[in-house]
Amino acid sequence: MSAAFAVEATQGKARAGILQTRRGLVRTPVFMPVGTQATVKAVSPDELRELGAQIILGNTYHLHVRPGEKLIRRLGGLHEFMAWDRPILTDSGGFQVFSLAKLRRVTPEGVHFQNHLDGTPTFIGPETSMEIQRDLGSDIVMLFDECPPHPCSHADAAKSLELTLAWAERCRAWWDAQPQEWRPLVFGIVQGSAYPDLRERSARALVEMGFDGYAVGGVSVGEPEHEMFAAIENSVPFLPEEKPRYAMGLGTPPQMLEMVARGVDMFDCVLPTRLARNGTAFTARGTLNLKNAPFAEDPSPIEEGCTCAACRDFSRAYIRHLVKAEEILGLRLVSLHNLHFYLNLMRQARERILDGTFEEFRRGFVAGYKAA
Amino acid sequence: MSAAFAVEATQGKARAGILQTRRGLVRTPVFMPVGTQATVKAVSPDELRELGAQIILGNTYHLHVRPGEKLIRRLGGLHEFMAWDRPILTDSGGFQVFSLAKLRRVTPEGVHFQNHLDGTPTFIGPETSMEIQRDLGSDIVMLFDECPPHPCSHADAAKSLELTLAWAERCRAWWDAQPQEWRPLVFGIVQGSAYPDLRERSARALVEMGFDGYAVGGVSVGEPEHEMFAAIENSVPFLPEEKPRYAMGLGTPPQMLEMVARGVDMFDCVLPTRLARNGTAFTARGTLNLKNAPFAEDPSPIEEGCTCAACRDFSRAYIRHLVKAEEILGLRLVSLHNLHFYLNLMRQARERILDGTFEEFRRGFVAGYKAA
Repeated sequence: MSAAFAVEATQGKARAGILQTRRGLVRTPVFMPVGTQATVKAVSPDELRELGAQIILGNTYHLHVRPGEKLIRRLGGLHEFMAWDRPILTDSGGFQVFSLAKLRRVTPEGVHFQNHLDGTPTFIGPETSMEIQRDLGSDIVMLFDECPPHPCSHADAAKSLELTLAWAERCRAWWDAQPQEWRPLVFGIVQGSAYPDLRERSARALVEMGFDGYAVGGVSVGEPEHEMFAAIENSVPFLPEEKPRYAMGLGTPPQMLEMVARGVDMFDCVLPTRLARNGTAFTARGTLNLKNAPFAEDPSPIEEGCTCAACRDFSRAYIRHLVKAEEILGLRLVSLHNLHFYLNLMRQARERILDGTFEEFRRGFVAGYKAA
Repeated sequence: MSAAFAVEATQGKARAGILQTRRGLVRTPVFMPVGTQATVKAVSPDELRELGAQIILGNTYHLHVRPGEKLIRRLGGLHEFMAWDRPILTDSGGFQVFSLAKLRRVTPEGVHFQNHLDGTPTFIGPETSMEIQRDLGSDIVMLFDECPPHPCSHADAAKSLELTLAWAERCRAWWDAQPQEWRPLVFGIVQGSAYPDLRERSARALVEMGFDGYAVGGVSVGEPEHEMFAAIENSVPFLPEEKPRYAMGLGTPPQMLEMVARGVDMFDCVLPTRLARNGTAFTARGTLNLKNAPFAEDPSPIEEGCTCAACRDFSRAYIRHLVKAEEILGLRLVSLHNLHFYLNLMRQARERILDGTFEEFRRGFVAGYKAA
């Protein structure tokens, strides 16, 4: 498979690049808002475009369970269904099958489970996952993988990795049998838990098969931060320079910058929208819980100098009132701000890599950011 | 008090008018979206402007209880607080005190009650209500009234009316003692339950005191539709032609047109946003419950030919999916459509009065609309 990724500039291991997808260019480093159920929670496609989102993520597992990829396909595909014309990356469903589904039974063929909504018996294997992602019309397809829990013994992680690699071969074969015109990009997922030898084996085997990009999976699954960094450090050296790298499901703003410094190009994370629903906003100095009493009469915006729609028009006091009163506009505004913050952080990282000042930017940001 | 209302055209009893408020003109007949807690539920001020909302309603009771009118005043008033620069009408809190509050005790001074949120003992009387509305910065202030339940004996309704009229005198006196520059408009509220003699007495007494406009209250409180129409018919003849008339808390789309035909100029109603939260959309042929199975693969918009943002970009199938999945974007889109429908219905009524075709419009609309 041929990649369509160009590295424009580097600083240390950090890269600024351009990824060509069939629905347009994605400039990296990039944050991808998560649209689990064919919508980024509380936010409209128009708002996402205004925020400058270049690409969003869709969830194979959720969309398969409801409303079903066949229905979406008959309605013109996921882009048409949700009125989003820019690229979409779909995860493979692997992570959700292992975190959400009930009565799971893993076989060499794939995974039998009962869905989390109504318990309907369902099966997803590597070929099914590729078919679902094809039917959705995904622009970047992820391989179907097994996600071992954390912690996990070396023996269990090794066994799981072999299954994941066998499934990778089958995904690869499935795509080789498809028409290659208008084919989406297909990304491999490096697994191997906390074990450097397994991460290396996983990365090398996937690169041997050859994919358009490589994700690091099995991170941000409850492990301490140093292990998360180690998982990336143990994977990236075995991935080709000329392909995009994606750290799945990360993370806090400083973690993302640390990952960029370690050579990662793409990120997705539910934190901006999930924390918004609790009234928690991201700022360069850390998170603010807008429910707190000191904000009750605070006329300033969530973050001074922020150009998002929430900070342009509304005070902390007003947003606090909305959140306390459980008004939808409250979580809409905090979601907009948080997505702006994440998207903008990656835009800044990109600019700083391009002008050669990324290291100062990263150090300054990480030093100024207080963990909640 | 001098009015600032001009009737531009009439057809039968229906009127097209212009109401001058201190924050700009309101063209009537007009629908006022309800912003109970300093936000029209699920909708942003930018969206309200795009929808062409000329004026919105705020709730004295709710804002007094949370976050408090003093806080809002210190932050620059309700307009500044919620970033809405067009006119705001505030109700007096009377209706909510009698429908939401607990352990209510009515005295000649006003009403003692425990608020519905945390049971804090609270008092609102006519002067308090005027102060709260002044502090909020309301452009159209409503008198504080007692709202008798439905049904209500003649004796009880008469007794309640006398209290309401005494309170009206006190509200009037309170405003007479205020600086008259930059004074909001003040509207009286006709009460009298289902009794023509009491409606007449109420209207005549209020007109004698003299207000900038007159509402009909105690309607849409559970009575049959013919009683609702009768309450209006028994009030309007005693109200001056040259003042605006407001039917409080109405109604379905056909009811609003019937009220326009009976000489009413202004409306507010929670139905567009309340029903949206259940996935119910308004159309010229009646309501649609988008949760229903036949919409699962329906690629058409909520209403063919509708120009709202929801109908422009999204299918019934997609919105149904969002509503079923309890995604906020679903109720956002249905709220936008429903508000557009109500606002547009009054815009059309106005145009039809201006061009002399209102009666055909009303008859055609009412005949085509199927009650749910």
